[in-house]
Amino acid sequence: SPWGGGGEGHSVYSHSNPSPDFCSPVNFLEVEGNQGLVAAVFGILFSSLCMLVLDKDPLPLIASGKTRAVVTGYWKIMALLYYPAFYYPLIACAMSRHQAGYFIGCLLSWCHCVVCIWQKVDCPQSPKIYRYYSLLSDVPLILCLVVLSIWYPVLLVNSFTQEKAAAKEVMCCSFFRIHLGMALLKGSWGKPLCPHYVPFLWFQVPLKLVISVTTAVIAVYQVALLLLVAFIPNIQIVRAGMTKEITVLLVQFGVIPSENAGGVPGDMEKELATVKHYLWSLEVCYICSLVLSCLLTFSMLLRSLVVHRANLKALYRGAVLDVFCHARVLRPSQQALVCWMSFASFQTAFTCFGLLIQQVIFFICTVAFTFLVVIPLQSGTNRHLFKILENMWPFWLTLVLAVVVQNLLAHFYFLEKPLCVVSYLLFPMNVLVGVLAAGWRMVISALYNVVHFCQLDISLLNRGPVLLPGYRTYCHYLKLEVSQSHPVMKAFCCLLLQLPSPEGQPGLKPTDVEEGEILLLPSLALSEKGLMRASKSKQTRTRWWLAYTLLNNPSLLAYRKAVLSDPTANGTQPCSARP
Amino acid sequence: SPWGGGGEGHSVYSHSNPSPDFCSPVNFLEVEGNQGLVAAVFGILFSSLCMLVLDKDPLPLIASGKTRAVVTGYWKIMALLYYPAFYYPLIACAMSRHQAGYFIGCLLSWCHCVVCIWQKVDCPQSPKIYRYYSLLSDVPLILCLVVLSIWYPVLLVNSFTQEKAAAKEVMCCSFFRIHLGMALLKGSWGKPLCPHYVPFLWFQVPLKLVISVTTAVIAVYQVALLLLVAFIPNIQIVRAGMTKEITVLLVQFGVIPSENAGGVPGDMEKELATVKHYLWSLEVCYICSLVLSCLLTFSMLLRSLVVHRANLKALYRGAVLDVFCHARVLRPSQQALVCWMSFASFQTAFTCFGLLIQQVIFFICTVAFTFLVVIPLQSGTNRHLFKILENMWPFWLTLVLAVVVQNLLAHFYFLEKPLCVVSYLLFPMNVLVGVLAAGWRMVISALYNVVHFCQLDISLLNRGPVLLPGYRTYCHYLKLEVSQSHPVMKAFCCLLLQLPSPEGQPGLKPTDVEEGEILLLPSLALSEKGLMRASKSKQTRTRWWLAYTLLNNPSLLAYRKAVLSDPTANGTQPCSARP
Repeated sequence: SPWGGGGEGHSVYSHSNPSPDFCSPVNFLEVEGNQGLVAAVFGILFSSLCMLVLDKDPLPLIASGKTRAVVTGYWKIMALLYYPAFYYPLIACAMSRHQAGYFIGCLLSWCHCVVCIWQKVDCPQSPKIYRYYSLLSDVPLILCLVVLSIWYPVLLVNSFTQEKAAAKEVMCCSFFRIHLGMALLKGSWGKPLCPHYVPFLWFQVPLKLVISVTTAVIAVYQVALLLLVAFIPNIQIVRAGMTKEITVLLVQFGVIPSENAGGVPGDMEKELATVKHYLWSLEVCYICSLVLSCLLTFSMLLRSLVVHRANLKALYRGAVLDVFCHARVLRPSQQALVCWMSFASFQTAFTCFGLLIQQVIFFICTVAFTFLVVIPLQSGTNRHLFKILENMWPFWLTLVLAVVVQNLLAHFYFLEKPLCVVSYLLFPMNVLVGVLAAGWRMVISALYNVVHFCQLDISLLNRGPVLLPGYRTYCHYLKLEVSQSHPVMKAFCCLLLQLPSPEGQPGLKPTDVEEGEILLLPSLALSEKGLMRASKSKQTRTRWWLAYTLLNNPSLLAYRKAVLSDPTANGTQPCSARP
Repeated sequence: SPWGGGGEGHSVYSHSNPSPDFCSPVNFLEVEGNQGLVAAVFGILFSSLCMLVLDKDPLPLIASGKTRAVVTGYWKIMALLYYPAFYYPLIACAMSRHQAGYFIGCLLSWCHCVVCIWQKVDCPQSPKIYRYYSLLSDVPLILCLVVLSIWYPVLLVNSFTQEKAAAKEVMCCSFFRIHLGMALLKGSWGKPLCPHYVPFLWFQVPLKLVISVTTAVIAVYQVALLLLVAFIPNIQIVRAGMTKEITVLLVQFGVIPSENAGGVPGDMEKELATVKHYLWSLEVCYICSLVLSCLLTFSMLLRSLVVHRANLKALYRGAVLDVFCHARVLRPSQQALVCWMSFASFQTAFTCFGLLIQQVIFFICTVAFTFLVVIPLQSGTNRHLFKILENMWPFWLTLVLAVVVQNLLAHFYFLEKPLCVVSYLLFPMNVLVGVLAAGWRMVISALYNVVHFCQLDISLLNRGPVLLPGYRTYCHYLKLEVSQSHPVMKAFCCLLLQLPSPEGQPGLKPTDVEEGEILLLPSLALSEKGLMRASKSKQTRTRWWLAYTLLNNPSLLAYRKAVLSDPTANGTQPCSARP
């Protein structure tokens, strides 16, 4: 197909075209090389976008301080296109795979870095939201620029010290070399590798995933920073400026409990302290919920990586049902391509949104907990919740008794006659127990959805044909990753390209090829094992074709098995004959 | 096992003990008989519970009007036990299966019905919440009592006209007779029945499910009625009593738009009309959302029935993975028994809770839609949303363009070089698209969870080991239903009981037994077909044992198949030899 041939051939074997390739700044199917560099550039891009949202002067050199908001909006839309173009050289230099490109990259990244740091040192404070907000929100940008400033010189030095041919070979067949390394391992141990190790060593995090996780982490930082500086400084100002007059007002509205019933301003020291304590509690709640949200989001991002690895491994094995619950065709479509292009941005946006929702929900929960449980326990006032619970204790006791009685009866009588009577007599109590269970169900499902919101690989809906926006993107992305970067296909393409190369070039020996083939075993049917003994180089290539065809058309395996098990068709042994 | 023997033998063959069985008012595993009657009694019980929640005098004859709230609470707890005991005779009379019982049931149900209707006719109004609330909330109670008043006479008349033996036979083996009927059908057609028909005809709604749906429907009625009378009369009073002074206040607070900027009370006719129109809109929104919630809840209850039927059929076939996603043992446990006992009450409670949540969410949504979209379009005022959307049109246009451009490129270029550049350049825009998609994801998942809240057969969580309260109850309930009321087991128990019966009693002929066996085919392996030609009565019973054993131990089928396909083991033909 034009897809597999053109796209894949380009991504793995770009070394065959030695001219600098500035037009394709980063190929997201590429499995190796400068993952960190590309992720850093995307981090810079996202940091710029974050500054853009709140900035009144979105574009440099154009100060729109006095213009109308509509014009600022136009500039912001322009800036959405300007920043990617502005940072484009930083990424294009690396992808040129040329010493001149690396040199220009060095200069550019140093320039950017120095200018950015100099700006911040020169003017660390800004009137926006909070004095140091601008400085703090630029930290990821500066870090990413520092990474680039180190990465480019390293690339340049490497390009001088290493030999060209060796570098090219690294580019070409490093995937295949992993297999070779494993074949050597096998040789030293003298026994076949455990099949579990093969998919483990095969796995390499896709570039697109590295980018998405980098930008998602930056998104968490930026959103958390914004939430922090928008609330904490303001409430600290309110706390510092709290006066006795406002306290009197609060006492009269019944917000603050007071022993001084008249609310005389002169004798409000204690109430003022209470108000300040309440405000401080709010601050603590806010920070706690923010920390909790960030930790949960980080852990969900990590889990997302783990799930992605498991999914990729399962799909490499052809276990589509383990991943999607429904049978799906893994052939990429136009829709899949669009989803794949926007995967990293969606992951970032979902992380922002999920963190916001989490912060809102957790803040409400912690405030409710603090003011209904902790403060009443501390001070002995505002014991509304405890009073309600105390007044209702016969009710709770009855419900607990009803549940215990049913459990005991179920244990000792086990569907004898009285059990049906009990089921009828306790029906009203069970309805009340059910109301509590319903509340619990609501809380759990809401928390589950809020916590897992940023995980694109979870559908949030129960298994069904409806695909939620994020999950749909992930499914299509996964399909494209698997179909276009399958290790077997890559090794196979590598072999195909070795075919017309001159003899002098350091190619792969036929025995290596054969050894590599062994590693394919776990993903192929057992009946293929019988083929492994033959060691001729031509046959090997034919069998790579066969392996690839069978992997993409598992339905053919049945026919193949029939042929193999028929002893008159050819001389190969059935699988059980092999040790 | 003591469970299968004791419990099941009791439920299916209670006719063998002719003494009135008042102690076991209703056996929930019983598949036939007075399902409507039992459901009506549970409906009466739940209606009493609903009145109890809001009533100040929970128990009759004890007027606690002047006592403290705590004492009322104690009476309410007492009433939770009093009402089941009070209505117990109504259900026990039917289960006695005796003419005297039916006669007493007639008298009791007529008494209850007459007293209840007489009370309501005598005093249709009550001061509670709304004049007619008490009358309206008693409608399900009266309907259920009317059902009982008709059902008992019918039972009594039937018990006189039908012969005892025939009635007993109906009790015993009606399940098996369904199979016989199907065997006759097969005979008249001259060809085997399509396997799809067999599970369809087998299915009978379990009694527990009928009860749960009845009480759930009553719960929807009661909650909807309460929501209606708590809001609509009050807002109508507010609307009628709206004066110009309050309108001035609302205009000054900016709630009502006014051309009369000063807010002079004398010239407020137009603004007063606007306020009344707004209040009327609120009423309409409330009623619309309530109707929507009720319809959705009803449809979810219906869907629940459909899903339950599909699940039961799948489990009868042994397809555990189709239902539970994970392999589970269907053997009942103590936990399962407790869940099974409380299933109907949980379904009722969850329906109440789900309807409340739906009403809150839908009311907020319809009010937002009305006041942000409909009223601005009608009157041309308050066009805040439209203004925001108008001001942001370049932003929306940009996002739409970005999506369209990506789709077009994916269609025409298909992973050629520029596509990676586009993916990099449009990253910031895709992040903004992702924020919109995240909002959409949140809305959809919230709506899905709210709408499906009352469906116990849906987990609400993504497939995982965690069982939410409602779903856990449903799983255990299903396990118990399947393990204790499997049609094959019932037919088998029927046959076992026929074994020691005297020859004169109208039993089953061996040929019938054999014909019934044919119907088991879809649930057994194909290899069993070869056994069907033998027609001796002793062998038939042995094979019922075999069928039951194989159905409960599907792993044995493999061994059996091996034995059958080995031509030297016995003389039976392999399955393919049979037409």
